[in-house]
Amino acid sequence: MSASTIDLAVIPGDGIGPEVTAEALKVLEKAAAAEGIVLRQTHYKLGAEHWLETGETLPAATLEDLRTRDAILFGAVGAAPGDTRIPSGIIERELLLKLRFSLDHFVNLRPSRLYAGVGSPLANPGEIDFIVVREGTEGPYVGNGGTLRAGTPHEVATEVSLNTAHGVERVVRDAFRRANDRPRKKLTLVHKHNVLVFAGQLWKRTVEAVAQEFPEVTHDYLHVDAATIFMVTDPARFDVIVTDNLFGDIITDLAAAVTGGIGLAASGNINMDRTAPSMFEPVHGSAPDIAGQQKADPTAAILSAALLLDHLGFAGAARKIEAAVTADVEARDGAVRTTSEVGDAIAAAL
Amino acid sequence: MSASTIDLAVIPGDGIGPEVTAEALKVLEKAAAAEGIVLRQTHYKLGAEHWLETGETLPAATLEDLRTRDAILFGAVGAAPGDTRIPSGIIERELLLKLRFSLDHFVNLRPSRLYAGVGSPLANPGEIDFIVVREGTEGPYVGNGGTLRAGTPHEVATEVSLNTAHGVERVVRDAFRRANDRPRKKLTLVHKHNVLVFAGQLWKRTVEAVAQEFPEVTHDYLHVDAATIFMVTDPARFDVIVTDNLFGDIITDLAAAVTGGIGLAASGNINMDRTAPSMFEPVHGSAPDIAGQQKADPTAAILSAALLLDHLGFAGAARKIEAAVTADVEARDGAVRTTSEVGDAIAAAL
Ligand SMILES: CC(C)[C@H](C(=O)O)[C@@H](O)C(=O)O
Ligand SMILES: CC(C)[C@H](C(=O)O)[C@@H](O)C(=O)O
Repeated sequence: MSASTIDLAVIPGDGIGPEVTAEALKVLEKAAAAEGIVLRQTHYKLGAEHWLETGETLPAATLEDLRTRDAILFGAVGAAPGDTRIPSGIIERELLLKLRFSLDHFVNLRPSRLYAGVGSPLANPGEIDFIVVREGTEGPYVGNGGTLRAGTPHEVATEVSLNTAHGVERVVRDAFRRANDRPRKKLTLVHKHNVLVFAGQLWKRTVEAVAQEFPEVTHDYLHVDAATIFMVTDPARFDVIVTDNLFGDIITDLAAAVTGGIGLAASGNINMDRTAPSMFEPVHGSAPDIAGQQKADPTAAILSAALLLDHLGFAGAARKIEAAVTADVEARDGAVRTTSEVGDAIAAAL
Repeated sequence: MSASTIDLAVIPGDGIGPEVTAEALKVLEKAAAAEGIVLRQTHYKLGAEHWLETGETLPAATLEDLRTRDAILFGAVGAAPGDTRIPSGIIERELLLKLRFSLDHFVNLRPSRLYAGVGSPLANPGEIDFIVVREGTEGPYVGNGGTLRAGTPHEVATEVSLNTAHGVERVVRDAFRRANDRPRKKLTLVHKHNVLVFAGQLWKRTVEAVAQEFPEVTHDYLHVDAATIFMVTDPARFDVIVTDNLFGDIITDLAAAVTGGIGLAASGNINMDRTAPSMFEPVHGSAPDIAGQQKADPTAAILSAALLLDHLGFAGAARKIEAAVTADVEARDGAVRTTSEVGDAIAAAL
């Protein structure tokens, strides 16, 4: 394979973020070297700690700098729940969501797979192997809303979910493409169109229209409440799920739980138009309670690095990381390993 | 106990609704008779079938008539998913949600309990016994939204979640009261305040304020995504959950699934100010695929009748129905029984 370069931005973040990111980089570096890929890294100090030191969430200059990179490897951000020095949600909204929205990460890709030997909380999980294509740039996440007469008995608070044909169509088409590339070729739209009728009809009509372009893909529909039932009674029924930003947030955490926990759940915030770098991050948060103790499982971060390679066109290297992770995960016997021991083992298995 | 009268409205509805309602009435009639309660019934033909015959969802005169009753026993409504004669969601919105909103059912009470011997999809469910107090009259369910340029590439669709201090405070206080009456005295607020900041802050502030009135109740907070994880990894942690209309819809279906299915999940749509009749219904839908075949489990409908008695002040009769259900459910051995056989058995166990 010919030599290529990846100009990588790294945002380790807070809590366990730096620890798991270090292992993801360890594996990424080795996989890249084996393929003759030159990995250039620029590390960015961002997150709750950085906010406490500087009062900055995501300065404009930093965002512009990030835009010039090929991809972003993201650890986790967020303060300890009890930390009252940091306004609630500010890091999530002004850093994480701001990156997703500014860099137009319209495909929030979250694969769920139950590895052989991994314990599921379900008694009979079956063969779980699906992906959720969560819309990442609109819906109830747009921050459109307000408060009138805050703190009085007459307070009114609103949240506006914004949904556009542009935004829905591109993510639905992406989901159909992915379904078309998978053996089962099945797509499930998850929404709540019987109640959220305006947004729901847009999603439903769009799925019906885009389905015409993919005659081999079958599709069905589930209300989000019914989808959570199937997630615990028959998760094997799912192949590709496409859904909005909020429903996707909810069902991917549930999906991570039924496949053995968020220590294994990877994600990509992907700009499929490639007008800005995509960002890859474990689904888990910064887990301040176990930070700095080498207790965190870096597997989700490592699998996120594989998604990164895949997105940049290095499918071979991505498959190798995934195979090494599979080998490691399937051999786990419950013995306690440090974060870096897990990273070492997966790197060695490459 | 002195003789009393219940002036009951009955809306059997569609699909399995009439079958399960018949069993709920069978048990309710027997329980009432034993306590010297006179049960007067008025049956209303409403639902998808009625819409097909008349084009009516909920005529104003019917709604006014319902207002004069003491309580409503509701079966299930809704057309078969494939039935294109009925505009999608119209029965849900213009009948079911219209009743909840018009009659100010601000407490949507949904208990979840894992009965001994009932199979949970979870490998180690633990002792599950919690209630969800779902807000029932506002949030994303208000039907406030719209569509601009429908069907064009420039379509924009909005959904507005409306939240008021009045609406949030009354349901939060109700949830604290219920928590205060339970042995564990623990309340969990479920929301997504790091993203839905306007509504989320109103909910959080309200919980903090109302908590002052209940010094014995401890409370915590979970984002809705994290709540779904705990629902499958540690559902025993929950005692009373208070949440908004949409999050409540999602987590109560999930809760029903982990406690053995929606065949057992009862609910009350309760107007705690008693300015209008409350309405009691199984969480399940009309299940047109098994309608008329005596296959439906009427237990959820029967438990809903117990909630009805409880709300009307007949706690003794309610407890007797619950005890009869517990006895029946715990004795189930997997043998197939018809809907009416289950009703007969529970009535006999009273
Ligand atoms: C931290 C939070 C804003 C975020 C989200 O809601 O998208 C997280 O839960 C996730 O799923 O990546
Ligand atoms: C039928 C539908 C409108 C309803 C809801 O979303 O509230 C149902 O799912 C429920 O939970 O009672």
